[in-house]
Amino acid sequence: MKFELHSAIEILRQTPYTLLRLLEDLAPEWTQSKGDTENWSPYDVIGHLIHGEETDWIPRAQIILKQGEKRTFVPFDRLAQFDRSKGKTLGDLLTEFAHLRNANIERLVYWQLTPEQLALRGTHPELGEVTLGQLMATWIVHDLNHIRQIVTHMAKQYEGEVGAWKEYLSILQ
Amino acid sequence: MKFELHSAIEILRQTPYTLLRLLEDLAPEWTQSKGDTENWSPYDVIGHLIHGEETDWIPRAQIILKQGEKRTFVPFDRLAQFDRSKGKTLGDLLTEFAHLRNANIERLVYWQLTPEQLALRGTHPELGEVTLGQLMATWIVHDLNHIRQIVTHMAKQYEGEVGAWKEYLSILQ
Repeated sequence: MKFELHSAIEILRQTPYTLLRLLEDLAPEWTQSKGDTENWSPYDVIGHLIHGEETDWIPRAQIILKQGEKRTFVPFDRLAQFDRSKGKTLGDLLTEFAHLRNANIERLVYWQLTPEQLALRGTHPELGEVTLGQLMATWIVHDLNHIRQIVTHMAKQYEGEVGAWKEYLSILQ
Repeated sequence: MKFELHSAIEILRQTPYTLLRLLEDLAPEWTQSKGDTENWSPYDVIGHLIHGEETDWIPRAQIILKQGEKRTFVPFDRLAQFDRSKGKTLGDLLTEFAHLRNANIERLVYWQLTPEQLALRGTHPELGEVTLGQLMATWIVHDLNHIRQIVTHMAKQYEGEVGAWKEYLSILQ
């Protein structure tokens, strides 16, 4: 499947509402943070997604679109959420993420990016040269990656409860 | 986390609506079946979940609860959906799944299962002895496993579009 802005935005638009349906009103045991930076809870993941909306996708797209002298992205802080989310409920974070995402989609739609713009390049501080189209495709896959991380974390809560079925459940391997 | 019927039902209740939000109104490229029994599309997965509601979880629970002479489950047909879903749209399947799931949750709630009942045993045709509690816990993990399968399938559509970012995206490994 080729990257195409219209169908990519379909996923970006759904993610906050998918996460709301998946996580809202669950018992805290399913979602709460244990402050473990190596094993993110759903709460930690939503904080990470918020930080991405603020500092990653659109700011990096702007760096590429400007085509100024300096086209290297600011490194992304993978653990910012462990401070930034402090004192907020999961519901707060889900609402905040939805607002930020919707504003970012509006901006993206407003840009009316052309194929020529999607082919423009910037420099990732570790990965090197990347295009705007690749950045946008990564945004989508990043959403899906973190939904996967959330459901995997939740499933592992029941790892000891499924008995002999464990061998059939690839999510527990 | 110990299996507890109340918090388990929270997940069972959300799954159909999570899937609706995740999949409804997407371009068919994201979701359509290619009839590939080794690589299920989101469409194939929803058909599989429907078949589970009809033939797996509640019917197997009934076999255990009855504690009759024959406590071996009927083997589950993992590929039934490739016939059973024919002619239906993804929207049809999502609605059908939500209806069946809601009816099954009602039945489960009505049973008011006791700890003694959750410890009752049946026989899985391949895995051997299992308890009703393990069957119920597996139902939840099975939901999460298939949400994971769906987002992984969707992410792989963009495998060739993310450029150098591929190495950061565990969902593409």
